[in-house]
Amino acid sequence: MSTPLFPAPAGKADLETGDVLTPRFGPDGTVTCVTVDADSGAVLMVGHMNAESLARTIASGEGWYWSRSRGELWHKGATSGNVQRVEELLVDCDQDALVMRVRVDGHGATCHTGRVSCFYRRVVLGRRPGPDAPASLEVVGEAPRFDPADVYGKG
Amino acid sequence: MSTPLFPAPAGKADLETGDVLTPRFGPDGTVTCVTVDADSGAVLMVGHMNAESLARTIASGEGWYWSRSRGELWHKGATSGNVQRVEELLVDCDQDALVMRVRVDGHGATCHTGRVSCFYRRVVLGRRPGPDAPASLEVVGEAPRFDPADVYGKG
Repeated sequence: MSTPLFPAPAGKADLETGDVLTPRFGPDGTVTCVTVDADSGAVLMVGHMNAESLARTIASGEGWYWSRSRGELWHKGATSGNVQRVEELLVDCDQDALVMRVRVDGHGATCHTGRVSCFYRRVVLGRRPGPDAPASLEVVGEAPRFDPADVYGKG
Repeated sequence: MSTPLFPAPAGKADLETGDVLTPRFGPDGTVTCVTVDADSGAVLMVGHMNAESLARTIASGEGWYWSRSRGELWHKGATSGNVQRVEELLVDCDQDALVMRVRVDGHGATCHTGRVSCFYRRVVLGRRPGPDAPASLEVVGEAPRFDPADVYGKG
């Protein structure tokens, strides 16, 4: 077995007030990472980091994730050029979530659809959704900055 | 079986470009919700919503979550008074994460430690962590706005 990159989480007090990072990885071995624009503060994406991707992010100052869909380490921007330069990495009270403030290279776009942010639609509020009346979405984000077919292929 | 509150997710194109909310709830029946301050944009907390808490949030315009630790619906602020008024609820490209822009009642604090945000420590970057040299944390957030013992009891 490999040596651990992070100490095991201790009790509640150490998690909340300690000065050592002891991430509480979930059943799939990842913590949630909320990636935000270092200047505007806008949320760009929500990703997942396992121990190795978190260690690489801390060491390199570039955003690394664990791709749950592909089951592999993911250096964000390696294909598209939209590499994430980490300005600050924050951890929450119980150490199971991260906020990563980044500046994005390339097109400055984070979403695989070519948009700056993955969060380009809002939910219409004010009515309980149900089987006959689903909740609606409205587009709020700007247009894509690149064509995914050009960047990732027609795949 | 109860009738579904949200339609089942369809294919990739509908998820990414559709105008109907079809959340992709994970194995535990929840989606991740990133809750941010509607004015400053600061990330306040990362929570989880099951179908019922998401429906209540959409209908009421107040933040409802699923507490994974307590296994129950959670009207945020019901005990502390720090109720979340929803200004905007955004969904991401593949509909498995939400960003909720809120204004917070009461102390204006979201973290159970009494702080405005759960993200009050940052990770020291630039060196790969390992068994003999864990990653360090530095406090960056402001002081707590309330004493948890006063609000939640001595527990």
